Amino acid sequence: MTSPNPLRDPEDRRLPRIAGPSGLVLFGVTGDLARKKVMPAIYDLANRGLLPPGFSLVGFARRDWADQDFAQIVHDAVKEHARTEFREEVWKQLAEGFRFVPGDFSDDAAFDQLRRTIEELDQARGTAGNHAFYLSIPPKFFGDVVQQLEEHGLSEGRDGSWRRVVVEKPFGHDLESARELNDALNKVFPSGSVFRIDHYLGKETVQNILALRFANAMFEPIWNANYVDHVQITMAEDIGIGGRAGYYDGIGAARDVIQNHLLQLMALVAMEEPPDFEATALRIEKQKLLGAVSLPPRLDLTTARGQYVEGWSGGVKVAGFHDEEGIPKSSTTETYAAITLHVDNRRWAGVPFYLRHGKRLGRRVTEVAVVFKRAPHLPFHASATEELTQNALVIRIQPDEGLTVRFGSKVPGTSMEIRDVTMDFAYGGSFTESSPEAYERLILDVLLGDPPLFPRHEEVELSWQILDPILDHWARQDARGKARPDDYEAGTWGPASADAMLARDGRTWRRP
Amino acid sequence: MTSPNPLRDPEDRRLPRIAGPSGLVLFGVTGDLARKKVMPAIYDLANRGLLPPGFSLVGFARRDWADQDFAQIVHDAVKEHARTEFREEVWKQLAEGFRFVPGDFSDDAAFDQLRRTIEELDQARGTAGNHAFYLSIPPKFFGDVVQQLEEHGLSEGRDGSWRRVVVEKPFGHDLESARELNDALNKVFPSGSVFRIDHYLGKETVQNILALRFANAMFEPIWNANYVDHVQITMAEDIGIGGRAGYYDGIGAARDVIQNHLLQLMALVAMEEPPDFEATALRIEKQKLLGAVSLPPRLDLTTARGQYVEGWSGGVKVAGFHDEEGIPKSSTTETYAAITLHVDNRRWAGVPFYLRHGKRLGRRVTEVAVVFKRAPHLPFHASATEELTQNALVIRIQPDEGLTVRFGSKVPGTSMEIRDVTMDFAYGGSFTESSPEAYERLILDVLLGDPPLFPRHEEVELSWQILDPILDHWARQDARGKARPDDYEAGTWGPASADAMLARDGRTWRRP
Repeated sequence: MTSPNPLRDPEDRRLPRIAGPSGLVLFGVTGDLARKKVMPAIYDLANRGLLPPGFSLVGFARRDWADQDFAQIVHDAVKEHARTEFREEVWKQLAEGFRFVPGDFSDDAAFDQLRRTIEELDQARGTAGNHAFYLSIPPKFFGDVVQQLEEHGLSEGRDGSWRRVVVEKPFGHDLESARELNDALNKVFPSGSVFRIDHYLGKETVQNILALRFANAMFEPIWNANYVDHVQITMAEDIGIGGRAGYYDGIGAARDVIQNHLLQLMALVAMEEPPDFEATALRIEKQKLLGAVSLPPRLDLTTARGQYVEGWSGGVKVAGFHDEEGIPKSSTTETYAAITLHVDNRRWAGVPFYLRHGKRLGRRVTEVAVVFKRAPHLPFHASATEELTQNALVIRIQPDEGLTVRFGSKVPGTSMEIRDVTMDFAYGGSFTESSPEAYERLILDVLLGDPPLFPRHEEVELSWQILDPILDHWARQDARGKARPDDYEAGTWGPASADAMLARDGRTWRRP
Repeated sequence: MTSPNPLRDPEDRRLPRIAGPSGLVLFGVTGDLARKKVMPAIYDLANRGLLPPGFSLVGFARRDWADQDFAQIVHDAVKEHARTEFREEVWKQLAEGFRFVPGDFSDDAAFDQLRRTIEELDQARGTAGNHAFYLSIPPKFFGDVVQQLEEHGLSEGRDGSWRRVVVEKPFGHDLESARELNDALNKVFPSGSVFRIDHYLGKETVQNILALRFANAMFEPIWNANYVDHVQITMAEDIGIGGRAGYYDGIGAARDVIQNHLLQLMALVAMEEPPDFEATALRIEKQKLLGAVSLPPRLDLTTARGQYVEGWSGGVKVAGFHDEEGIPKSSTTETYAAITLHVDNRRWAGVPFYLRHGKRLGRRVTEVAVVFKRAPHLPFHASATEELTQNALVIRIQPDEGLTVRFGSKVPGTSMEIRDVTMDFAYGGSFTESSPEAYERLILDVLLGDPPLFPRHEEVELSWQILDPILDHWARQDARGKARPDDYEAGTWGPASADAMLARDGRTWRRP
């Protein structure tokens, strides 16, 4: 057990972490993300007492709104999406810090007004010059906005105050565009002031991967190629692309989910133990892991992609991808992607990691399944273990957060027969504490300047380096007319080619 | 995975194992064990279709009974204690094979009649000369009875038929008496025909220890001194000695339970993997383990014994041991014993095994707790893991059969705090199959001649070799008036000296 080191860590981590004097400037207040996630998370944080009393929220958008109009938008969003109870006194205090600045990203007067608004808040609410700019806007505008912030003296704090910028995925659509995007941000904000939100890292059960692996003695000894047969990382959605055709077409399942969420999950599951969980140590391990990832030689055999066609979802007939509004019939954008990755290090050599994501699958579930090798010898009669498969440890990320261990147990009776059973730990059922929403945790960390849960640009680049050859391979197939995404019926578990991909390795996908 | 070997094992172990033509002769039909366990188990086996159609049961006792009187005794025992439903047609067929032979153990005429009865059954019921003699009588009569069996031509089968003898604990009260007892049995029955019942080995969850350890890949790698801190094996009873003063006084907790049940549990938990589960291979591993057990040097510090005094059990005031009927005030017989054992082999060196048994404890529970070391380094803030203890894997033998794993999980919230949680597997809840009672399994194994679940005489000897120095140490303390069993209040968890014994090692007993 590590002994307390008061020099390095004076604070008791069990005490609530409360943000100091600060405010948030939200660009893109009319977007889905702002209304469904960011605004409710701010209210919930305030309701839990984790925001400073004078916290301020400034909206910026091309709308002819007064402060009260903006307040009404936030109010509606909170009423609809907040997770904690609505308390009038909390709302009232929070709403006193709401301001709205109308204008577009090229409007110098608007950014001047934004500066004056912030200065006014520093005076009136005591936000002390500490402000985070949350860019809930398309990435193509990031460059313009941060340049405006710089030009109007908004990008740097004075007298020890801080300015930070918060961005959301997509962090580019390949390695090159990711670098350009980062360059645009870095021209104005230094690396340590850029907070990239991958909301999966804000999820409790994702953070619990660290606790599970490194606070316990019994998992890490078997967490390697000696004992692990393979790892499956799945994010399945039951919904289709909804109204997001404009965003989704040309992006697809691999860029939308595998590049960020699933590779981050893989990094946390597979990385070496960092000496501590400070941002630097943690990111070094994630980078090392992502840097050790390699692709198998035959991408035609070790990847699969699909597009959903008409089928059934939740008892309702649903349209195929090509019939969704805004998707051209010629689109080869994949709504399902499965890839095989290797990790070239001592711990994982020879252990394939299978990552898959799809829309319109059988049900909504995200999980990491560590599947163990069979015991090298089974000292039982062969028939006793016919129905026994492989041990597995499944980290359930959502929706039913927890842990499942699958192992073999004797079937009751006067003969020795062994069958798979499971033991479960339900995250929700084991604690009286309620889980904060991912955005709560991450917005709080932005205000606290606590970066471990934000992927660094190097990780983003490494992820694109992993994915680019696969995307190129698919694009070449498309260009030559050699192959295109395979059909799969909505409500099923993806195309037959994905099953064939695992079958070639003598394995099968879990049906979670 | 082992491949099927038709030469060695042609039978499918998942098919019900059904006893061939055979019968049982029960000595001691009026005893508690016969009525509560043996008779109901025979009925339950018949009801499950696991006995041959012509199965016979012969009662032998000093009672002036006809066959019908004996049948009535069995009927009442079955009605009261059987676990399966009473079905008239099963009962009727079974009862046709009931016979009674009146007489005492020195009565030559009675043994002649027993022989004629068996011969008659072989003719009338097709028992084919296969008979097991179940000695549900005090061990001091074993010698007389087996000699009579021999003298009256009952101890050996003819033309390939078999004769077996079944005995129950106590197998002696020390090494010397155990050897004498075995010599008496072996004069008549060869080692392979002697079946010693330790009913714990008939329990499903005890057999499941083998499945758990050796059918799975994820437990065995951490099942050694590198990862295990210590092992606690507990059998706690809430009852007192009841009406068994005559048996119990002078025997005590160590001889009554630790010598047999707990050391057998320890052997199964700690032994190396046998190449198969044939009797020879399994017994070799258990013997090797018991042979490697050693005692720590200071028995005064590494053992504890107690006697319950007046207290509360299940909300009722209960008497102390010295106030039980038939117990002299001077009795130093322990009703609680805790001992520390070491295992001198590569796997377990340095890992103490703590075994304890007591009567009138907090509740009835039997379990094996494998407690793991802490992780060598915890990369968390010290305060994050203050409430985290050690990982543990607990095999629950009774009453709530199953498996519990205790591990650390992140507490939901915006800071990293880690606390113990548990995940559970309930044996009863996971299978539709019902567990046979231990006696069912063991009686069936006797009739099948399947010996893996019966301790061999060598194991009994080794167990006494482990226990004798402790019993001698306590006897010397008593003789010198230096120490005697420590008092503990009924309904508590044993004497303070047992807690002190673990506290000296920096450990604590589980409160199951």
